[in-house]
Amino acid sequence: MEAIRVAIAGAGNVAAHLAAGIATADGYELVAVASRNPSNAENLGAATTAACRYGDLASFAPDILIVSVADKAIDDVTAAIGPMPPNTVVALTSGTLAKERLAPLSARNGIFYPFQTFTKGYATDLGCVPFFIEGATGQEAEILATLARKLSRSVHFADAAHRQQLHIAGVFTSNFTNTIIGVVQTILDNAGFSRDVAVPLLNQTLAKAAEIGAYAAQTGPAVRGDIAVMKKQLEELPEEFRPTYRALSQLIMSQHNIPYEQNQL
Amino acid sequence: MEAIRVAIAGAGNVAAHLAAGIATADGYELVAVASRNPSNAENLGAATTAACRYGDLASFAPDILIVSVADKAIDDVTAAIGPMPPNTVVALTSGTLAKERLAPLSARNGIFYPFQTFTKGYATDLGCVPFFIEGATGQEAEILATLARKLSRSVHFADAAHRQQLHIAGVFTSNFTNTIIGVVQTILDNAGFSRDVAVPLLNQTLAKAAEIGAYAAQTGPAVRGDIAVMKKQLEELPEEFRPTYRALSQLIMSQHNIPYEQNQL
Repeated sequence: MEAIRVAIAGAGNVAAHLAAGIATADGYELVAVASRNPSNAENLGAATTAACRYGDLASFAPDILIVSVADKAIDDVTAAIGPMPPNTVVALTSGTLAKERLAPLSARNGIFYPFQTFTKGYATDLGCVPFFIEGATGQEAEILATLARKLSRSVHFADAAHRQQLHIAGVFTSNFTNTIIGVVQTILDNAGFSRDVAVPLLNQTLAKAAEIGAYAAQTGPAVRGDIAVMKKQLEELPEEFRPTYRALSQLIMSQHNIPYEQNQL
Repeated sequence: MEAIRVAIAGAGNVAAHLAAGIATADGYELVAVASRNPSNAENLGAATTAACRYGDLASFAPDILIVSVADKAIDDVTAAIGPMPPNTVVALTSGTLAKERLAPLSARNGIFYPFQTFTKGYATDLGCVPFFIEGATGQEAEILATLARKLSRSVHFADAAHRQQLHIAGVFTSNFTNTIIGVVQTILDNAGFSRDVAVPLLNQTLAKAAEIGAYAAQTGPAVRGDIAVMKKQLEELPEEFRPTYRALSQLIMSQHNIPYEQNQL
């Protein structure tokens, strides 16, 4: 059986990780990586010699084209790529864009969204990264899901509305958790403690939330309605962190039905 | 050399984990675990046969007495324990109370604070739990630190003001991270996704924050000042989560100097 031919448009973090995965996937061949500037594509270090410009992609006639560029660049990139051969299935890796944004390339479009934060220099085991797939029809969805299953053990289907919910969950999971960790790092830095002292507490918190659910696992002054401790902590916090402290404490109190007259920070 | 004799007042989660650790610590002997109701102390399953009432503790003449009870019970408990023999060093496990709350028991008082969340049924490797020590004089501090070093590889000294900063950091590390995870679990539950799909993203987020610091690791719509995406996500969020989304997005924008006129959610 002939290998399924895959091309990638884009040379950023997501493209780099996908290129490395596809290049070694059994039954698939990475035939081209395209960028505005082919030297960016070459720099991926992916196992393909075919680094090209967006406009050259049609000449490779890939079975699948993965478009992995910044959301704001999408219209420029699709204009540069132009129509693909009619059999090519084209897919976006974006969490927010609609598959219809690829209509200028092909009616056989879809979504190939890895729910992960990719950074150059940070190895990611693609095998456990959840991929969320959508297709113009079930046929495109299945072609994309089959590729995703070569890369990962966690492959799912999601329409645009569900993917929007995922993206919101991703902001909380990644950006907001990261912000909270940043506050902890600042407090520990300012007090002269090593950042490491928070790690066992964080690990135990995450383990408990995963095992019994975050609601049941909640502890601390807010869930006890201990307004005196919360007011004291608010006073001692740098001003910039107070709205976050207030919002999260109010959310905990509201979720755990702390009486209204106590719920004043 | 004779073993150092330790007693514990309290039969809760912290007391249970400490009792198990002290009972097996080389050079130490757990001579008594006390509770209002001795059967609670027996239920610890600690390696001591001496379960007793608070009021009986002085008769054991321990070298060290660890007082590990709920903050709000402290005055009742010290009244019930009464003065200890003059050589006994007494210490609180609390993150917030002052060591002077133990003055009715002994002038040789201090703090023995494990920076961790303990729950019955959740094993905790005490060896990596940071302990924070304070003593009425350096002598008490050293006696308590020596015991802590038998239990853990991470032992530190902290005065009351520094411990207060730690406690605030602990609220962010444990309670607020837990709240954010709870929001993620709710969004995923409501959309019909498995909670597991967020785990690789969370793990990668924490790894990056630890390695390069949370500030440098920040990604997402807020750090890009992408107000359109943030407004759309706010509209799609359940009402109760919006103040948290707003506070954290504003904090990210402020930390990363997103221009003021964009900083409106």
